[in-house]
Amino acid sequence: MDLGGTNLKGGIVSERGEFYDYVSAPSQVKKGPEVVMGIMLKMTRELIGKAKERGISITGIAVVSPGVIDSQFGGVTGGANNLPGWKGTPFMKIMHEKTGLPIFAHNDVTATLLGEVKFGAAVGKRNVIMATFGTGIGGGVVVDGKIYGGRTGYAGEFGHMVIHGGGYTCTCGAKGCWEEYASSRGIVRAAKSNIEGHAGGKGVLFGKIEKNNGEIDPKVIFDSARERDKLAMEIIQVIGMDTAIGVGSLINIFNPEMFVVGGGIASAGVTYLDAIEKNLPDWTLRDSLDGTEVVLSKLGYRAGIFGAAALVFEDINRLG
Amino acid sequence: MDLGGTNLKGGIVSERGEFYDYVSAPSQVKKGPEVVMGIMLKMTRELIGKAKERGISITGIAVVSPGVIDSQFGGVTGGANNLPGWKGTPFMKIMHEKTGLPIFAHNDVTATLLGEVKFGAAVGKRNVIMATFGTGIGGGVVVDGKIYGGRTGYAGEFGHMVIHGGGYTCTCGAKGCWEEYASSRGIVRAAKSNIEGHAGGKGVLFGKIEKNNGEIDPKVIFDSARERDKLAMEIIQVIGMDTAIGVGSLINIFNPEMFVVGGGIASAGVTYLDAIEKNLPDWTLRDSLDGTEVVLSKLGYRAGIFGAAALVFEDINRLG
Repeated sequence: MDLGGTNLKGGIVSERGEFYDYVSAPSQVKKGPEVVMGIMLKMTRELIGKAKERGISITGIAVVSPGVIDSQFGGVTGGANNLPGWKGTPFMKIMHEKTGLPIFAHNDVTATLLGEVKFGAAVGKRNVIMATFGTGIGGGVVVDGKIYGGRTGYAGEFGHMVIHGGGYTCTCGAKGCWEEYASSRGIVRAAKSNIEGHAGGKGVLFGKIEKNNGEIDPKVIFDSARERDKLAMEIIQVIGMDTAIGVGSLINIFNPEMFVVGGGIASAGVTYLDAIEKNLPDWTLRDSLDGTEVVLSKLGYRAGIFGAAALVFEDINRLG
Repeated sequence: MDLGGTNLKGGIVSERGEFYDYVSAPSQVKKGPEVVMGIMLKMTRELIGKAKERGISITGIAVVSPGVIDSQFGGVTGGANNLPGWKGTPFMKIMHEKTGLPIFAHNDVTATLLGEVKFGAAVGKRNVIMATFGTGIGGGVVVDGKIYGGRTGYAGEFGHMVIHGGGYTCTCGAKGCWEEYASSRGIVRAAKSNIEGHAGGKGVLFGKIEKNNGEIDPKVIFDSARERDKLAMEIIQVIGMDTAIGVGSLINIFNPEMFVVGGGIASAGVTYLDAIEKNLPDWTLRDSLDGTEVVLSKLGYRAGIFGAAALVFEDINRLG
């Protein structure tokens, strides 16, 4: 299962990467941890039932969640600020007691990267970096085939790498974090600032914004750019540059075999990847960029579930 | 031996970290690789002679050098742009032929970090980041006790992490690299810009600049700050901030046990470390900063030689 701020997603994954029985439900995180726990247990029962129907034997149950997971404690011990009260809820213990099955859990972004290495874009790679672009920017590091978590599991906070020192104030308090420029809110801000001065304008982008109830979001911009709307393409050049500044810095820092671009914004696909790749040579040492594969995540909306499955089959962060 | 753009330094180091017979000679890198090779062979003979006099048996000879070292080739295969012609000189092979002893070599910054882990500030640490501040900014990464080199040995190019996107143009072509703000040239630039408008001024800093033949360098600024010169202290606040932006970003990225501050500028000691530490909370996630030790390199001017010794005793990048 993949617990997010909006939805809880689940499915059954075999060791060979076969995927069955996708399910999804609102995670209702604002109602507090007990409600979330109830939704998770309900989905667990549902998926166990589906597995039984198919005659599939269950090796283990895994959950990926924002925050730092401590499998000794059995839940989140740090981070996960957008899931009120979730920190301190020993969901792994509760699930183990209710099911008797081994429970696995890990931070969602790092597990997703593990999923890409085992089932997705990075199969066979040993040194891989992943950044997920969405509400915020998450990051994961695989060194020598294994997740690198750092001292307390906080490694990979790429969103809080400062790329415009002294710039916009981030939710973390620092000024100029990458997240302020290349997450959804950064993209929307860049779009608004480019759209200013074109008030009452016509063209594909304005049409799509109107259809979207006046809301500007990454999808509207990328869709318009795909139809070659000039203003949307200008906005994407800004986004591509600010995204490439961070990706390039990370390639200079890690010299990875592969850099995987994931998260909600990456569903814009090739238009997004092109915007990043076009700008990368301006911000990356040639010796390090040459030969580094920059690719889109392959697992899409099921990435977290595949990541959860990777935990089970690699026996990572087990309880019970 | 530690080959640098200015000097070749050498010494004898025991496995327990005892240090004997420090020697140093101008490396004369501008005269080309044959001259450098001659100086290295002369120092090798000198040190072998000193070891014999002391009755010390030699386990191996090691050289640390800028650039990416390939022990198959026996020399530098990339980088080392400030050592003309050094790339492509198989110095390891030549030294092995002349001495019959096993030869070891590695990039100077990464080896220095290994030296800090084996003999210096980071003994017993498993996940350590080091940045060296001097003419440029170098970096090294130790993961799980081992050097992390990345795909082709270029990992750790921290100087080319962009902290002021769109700012000063770096030697690499990118705009706003950390190196443009926190290396010697960045520090001198910050100093000049702060000194402007104080022309003909008096005070400790101006006195020291005059004594230094009108030259502004990091030493003059830090020495003046130690004597509580107001202008020097203002300059150090700027330097401390721009240095902390990069150190903080790297702590967010790696969540290390320890961050080691090394290189020529670090010889300014506690004044320098204080300037960084004072600014760090503004640029680092609290969860990651709490518990990360930020320390000065312990090995000083002999750091590279200790790093070379670490290669021998850990059997890294051996030829012969």
